[in-house]
Formats: sequence, C-alpha cells, structure tokens
Amino acid sequence: MFDAETLPYGVFTTLDRPGIRRVGVAVENRILDLSQARVPHPALFAYGTLDPFLVAGPEVWHTVREALLAGVGGPYVPMSEATLHLPFTVADYVDFYASEHHATNVGRIFRPGRHPLTPNWMHMPIAYHGRAGTVVASGTEIHRPSGQFRPEGSVAPFFGPTRRLDFEAELGFVVGTPSPMGVPVPVEDFAEHVFGICVVNDWSARDLQSWEYVPLGPFLGKSFATSVSPWVVPLAALDGFRVPAPSGRTPLLPYLREREDRGLDLTLEVRLNGEVVSRPPYAAMHWSPAQMLAHLTANGACLRPGDLLASGTVSGPEPEQAGSLIELTGGGEQGLVLPDGSVRTWLEDGDEVEVRALGPDGRFLGAVRGRIARSAAVTV
Amino acid sequence: MFDAETLPYGVFTTLDRPGIRRVGVAVENRILDLSQARVPHPALFAYGTLDPFLVAGPEVWHTVREALLAGVGGPYVPMSEATLHLPFTVADYVDFYASEHHATNVGRIFRPGRHPLTPNWMHMPIAYHGRAGTVVASGTEIHRPSGQFRPEGSVAPFFGPTRRLDFEAELGFVVGTPSPMGVPVPVEDFAEHVFGICVVNDWSARDLQSWEYVPLGPFLGKSFATSVSPWVVPLAALDGFRVPAPSGRTPLLPYLREREDRGLDLTLEVRLNGEVVSRPPYAAMHWSPAQMLAHLTANGACLRPGDLLASGTVSGPEPEQAGSLIELTGGGEQGLVLPDGSVRTWLEDGDEVEVRALGPDGRFLGAVRGRIARSAAVTV
Repeated sequence: MFDAETLPYGVFTTLDRPGIRRVGVAVENRILDLSQARVPHPALFAYGTLDPFLVAGPEVWHTVREALLAGVGGPYVPMSEATLHLPFTVADYVDFYASEHHATNVGRIFRPGRHPLTPNWMHMPIAYHGRAGTVVASGTEIHRPSGQFRPEGSVAPFFGPTRRLDFEAELGFVVGTPSPMGVPVPVEDFAEHVFGICVVNDWSARDLQSWEYVPLGPFLGKSFATSVSPWVVPLAALDGFRVPAPSGRTPLLPYLREREDRGLDLTLEVRLNGEVVSRPPYAAMHWSPAQMLAHLTANGACLRPGDLLASGTVSGPEPEQAGSLIELTGGGEQGLVLPDGSVRTWLEDGDEVEVRALGPDGRFLGAVRGRIARSAAVTV
Repeated sequence: MFDAETLPYGVFTTLDRPGIRRVGVAVENRILDLSQARVPHPALFAYGTLDPFLVAGPEVWHTVREALLAGVGGPYVPMSEATLHLPFTVADYVDFYASEHHATNVGRIFRPGRHPLTPNWMHMPIAYHGRAGTVVASGTEIHRPSGQFRPEGSVAPFFGPTRRLDFEAELGFVVGTPSPMGVPVPVEDFAEHVFGICVVNDWSARDLQSWEYVPLGPFLGKSFATSVSPWVVPLAALDGFRVPAPSGRTPLLPYLREREDRGLDLTLEVRLNGEVVSRPPYAAMHWSPAQMLAHLTANGACLRPGDLLASGTVSGPEPEQAGSLIELTGGGEQGLVLPDGSVRTWLEDGDEVEVRALGPDGRFLGAVRGRIARSAAVTV
C-alpha cells in the first residue's frame, strides 16, 4: 500500500464503468479520480492515459504534486474496486545492463572461460532496444514462448516451448519531456526529461536467448512479454533516497560524469508463488539512470514521451541478492528450494512472480505481478 | 517516376496548405489526393496518415487498389509541388540480417579469424530491435553522431564524432493487420498482415558499433537515424516479381518452410552524390520477408499496425554488389573512387546517399535520400 506522500499516477477502470479509463493517484487504500478532482491542469487528466501529463513537463509535474500534497478534494475509489491498466503509451523500450553483479554472474554462465565483463562494460551503460509492443500491465498472464534452442551436445537446433523460462527484476524510468534529434541530453538534465519510475519484470527464455544472441543481441528470448507496474512514482517522491552510483569511483568520459547523486537506495523484493526468493539492492547498480539517459542520447537520438528505460536485472553482491533465476540457480545447476518444499530451477506453468520496490525506510514504491499461463498456448 | 500501375501510398503537403497532411497515391508525375477523391472507404484517408488504412486489412487494401486501377476521378497535385512526409506511425522497428553475402562480408571484418557466419545464421533470420523514434522520412538531414569508439592500439575509448559513417541499403516491410499476443503468424499468412514495402537506409557508425555491440548487439551505432522512402508500395504491385528465397534449398525447422515463393526479384541502386556505386540484387537475400515475420512472431510476440521489418543490408555475391561502404571498401582499407575522381572510405559531411528500388523490368519502386549535415551538430 502506498503512503499518503508517494502519490504515484496510474490508469484505472471500475466494474460499473468498465470501458472508461481514468487517470488516478494512489493514496493509501484509495485512488483519487483525477478525471473529476479539483486539480491544476485538469485537461491533462481527461484522456484515460498519462500521455498528456507526461509531455507537459517538470513545471506542471511540480505544480500538480504540490497541489496533491496540500490536499485535493475529489472523488475517491477504493483500490479494491479498481482494475489497473498500462498507464502510458510505451514509445521506445530500452533495456540496460547496469548491474555489475548481474553482468558478471551472467557473463560467467553465457561465456565460460572468458572474462565475464566485456571490455566496454566499465566505460558505458550497455543496452539494447526491446519490443515496445509487448510491454504489458502487471497482472497480464504470460504465455510460455516457443522458439529455437540448441540443447547441449546437439548440432542442430530444436523448436518448442522454452525449457528455461526466467524473470528479471528491474526498475524502469519513464520519459516525459521529449528532446529533439541531434541534441544529446546531459546527465544534469535527467529530471527535466524523466518523470518517474515503475517496476519491471523482463521475462526471459534463456535457451532461446543463448542460441540467438550472437551477434546482434537478445531478440525472441525477450520480446514475448515485459511486465510493468501500474503505478508510476514521480522522481520527486524519491529525492530522499538518492545515493552516488558506484561508477563515480571509476574513470569516466566527460559525458558520463555526474555532479549530483542519481543512484537510488531502494530494494527490490522478488516473490515466487508468494515466497520471497531475493532482495536485490538497487544502490549497488553501477550506472545511474542519468548516465543511462545521457548515453542513450549521446549520438543525438531523440526522446519521445513514453520512452521506457529499464535498468536491467538488479543483482547485489551476495548470491542470494540476485534478480533472476539463472543467477539464483547457477545457470539451472542448483535448484532453489522454496519454503513449501518445492524446487525451482526455471519457472513452471502456473508460477506467479511478483517484484516489489521498497524504500530504505520500507516505504512501498510499487509492484509488478505476472503468472505463467497453465497451458502453453503457443504451438506451431 | 512511378508508373500508372504501381500505385504506392504516401502522405504529402503543398505550399498553399503547409499544415494539412493528406494521403495520396503516386501516379506518374502526379499525386491523386485521396482525401478528396471518390474512392472506397474515404474515411480511412481523412487523417493525414496511412495508419487507419493499414489497420483496415487485406480486403480493404484490395478493394481500394482495384478501384484505383479501374480509374478514380479526383484532384491531382503535381509531384513537383508536394512535400512528402513519414507516411505512417512506426510502431516497433526490427532490423534483420537476411543477406548471406552481407553477413559473411561483415563477419570477416568484425570477427577476423573466425567463421564469418555464426552457428545460428543458417537456422533462423537473425534480427534486433532498432529505435522506432528515430525513423525519419527521406530527405531529412542526418547529423553525424558522436559516441564512444576505441581506435586500434588504444586501451581506453575516445568520445567524439564518428569517423566511420556508413549507409545500409535495405528494403522495409510495413505491417498493417495486427496479431494478438501468444499467437504466432505462420509464413503462409504473410500477406494477411504485411501491407507493402518501402526503401530503407539504416545509417551506421561503424566505430561506435564495433566497440559497443558485444554482448547485447548494435545500439548507438544505429539508433541516431534510419531513413525510409515516402511511398509505400503495396505487395499486390510486386506479385510478378516473386522468386524462391535461397533458404528453401537448406534444411529448415517446420515454422520456416514456405510453400509459396516470397523472395523478390528487385534491384537496389545505391547512389553516392549522384553516382551509382552499387546495384545489390534483392533476389539473393537468403531469408524471405515471410520467414522474417514468422520468426519474429514465433515466440508469441504480437504485431501492431506500423511495425516495420527491415531486411538488413542487401548485398549480392559480387564485391561491387554490396549495400554498404564497409563492404565496398573492405572495412575502410580500399578507398572507393567516384567518377568525379574523389575517394570515399566513409561518408563525409555534405555527402548525399540515395537508394532506389527497381523491378526486373526497370520499373521504379521507390527511393530514399539523405544528406549528412555540413557541420557536426552534436557536441557534448
């Protein structure tokens, strides 16, 4: 449950008006219906999506938040009566690889015998573009994807449902203000462009991924679904949690040097069928989100409202702080024993994964949930 | 100039009404203004973008084309008086790597001493997601991107304007009809979903690309700009040019086997500052566009109207049939001498690249142009 000061934005419907999407703000166990509240700039909240509010920019974000903090009259809907939806239109979706611990763990598994971090890793926040069209709201059922994979010892690939279905616990950064082509966004302009954060689960099929990813990177192993939390928490609510990112202790090219702390001291809590299996610390992320944004635009690529930058899997220095099953099970070698006695190396049909974001004071900052469909819907 | 039967669709403005985008069809040296013509389903053409027409599906595409072929009265605008725009909203942009000759040439340059084709290449059409937000209309000026690169012999990377700016001559396939998540689109349903083709120049910064692309694939080396032709040629206009794709002569997993010929016997003609530097044959492309679409959706990823699938660089078996400078110059080792005596290894500021698509009978099927801006606008 969100407290009374986080004030995240989302989009909801209620059973009595199922076709009418409304923008709201979560306040404890209720939703303030912004489509009918006495709030500044009400026209921005009239369209059932956060898109117009995102593009309005930091001054408007500030004005509306100050008004909400001061108290706004307006109809409230009990959270329990609301269905939550994807809150904004995803423009481009970029997935980073900003955790040194994750990149090291996965590098050892995917490229055994070589240095786990590639030579570029400490110089830039590595990333790739994902599929914006398969970003779905928390709660959407996930179909086990089929694809090509090559079992160990086989020369020819097979085709079928993935045998190595995984989750990746991540934070997402939602762009509001656009930027023109040809003009990079410096690290210090981060808060001029990024509105807030969401929680992301970047579902992954490890057998598809390892067979396809050389030389052009992950594709079908990732593109079947990415789940995001329904509530976007404004950056302004996170100011108290800012810490320096570890990259500041390394030599950096000037465009990646930060004068302000832009790391975040949050914890992700990963639950598998209701049991906590990991608590990755976000403060350990090597690259800050401001560095990600500066790198993304260093070549002059423009930003659009709704661009989603995900952090990549959040993993801490301890083995039990990893944000994916491939790390928690050593590449599927050691089963993870759940409190009910069941064992997982990879996700099974019917499994539910939930990732929550929590402040250092335990404050709730969002959650993303998804269940693997009971039967594989994908056959060819 | 398009003939009277190709009938490609685009979006244009005229100087007397510069803010009003209109959908039109190119007929020789004129544009039929569909926003005012007596055409079936006129409401689909009232919004200044092809988006509503794309989503309308194959029956409507057929009906409108038949009416146009039979002759439609309506206002015409001289082509010379029109400004052309990006004709549709790009949803997701996926760039394939479907030319065996290109993949072999580039593999030798990027990974010397190893087999140029990775083990997966003959089993699947390799691809990656590009940046939809930087797909621009033909004629848009291209800013030379800056980024990280590591010169030979250096341990640390540098940051600055790319020294290895390149083009890639490609064909693009434009999706109309969407598909739901979890349901793959089989090869035989290609024409149910894909509306038509455009010509694509996937601008590339080779020094940025080679430093960044391991392990997650191309990112800033590609994401600064991708140019597309303003006219989308319907598949129906290309029926006479269909040929079998070479992949049909290799063992394939069932979901990639084709019963219909879906390769295309087209030629791309690449001009640098007006001089033809290459004529890559599209018929040599190993993977057909129907195989690309089947692979893209094999994991259950949905399609959206406006999804753009690009073929990857089109290169033929002969060295002078390559679709990129990196191939034509052997990785920048041998300068390309232009007819005016000037030499190019990479693109220089002010250079203009044009890629045309031509049928086997010489029929014009579209062109994409772009010029490198005279001064590097990108500084950090």
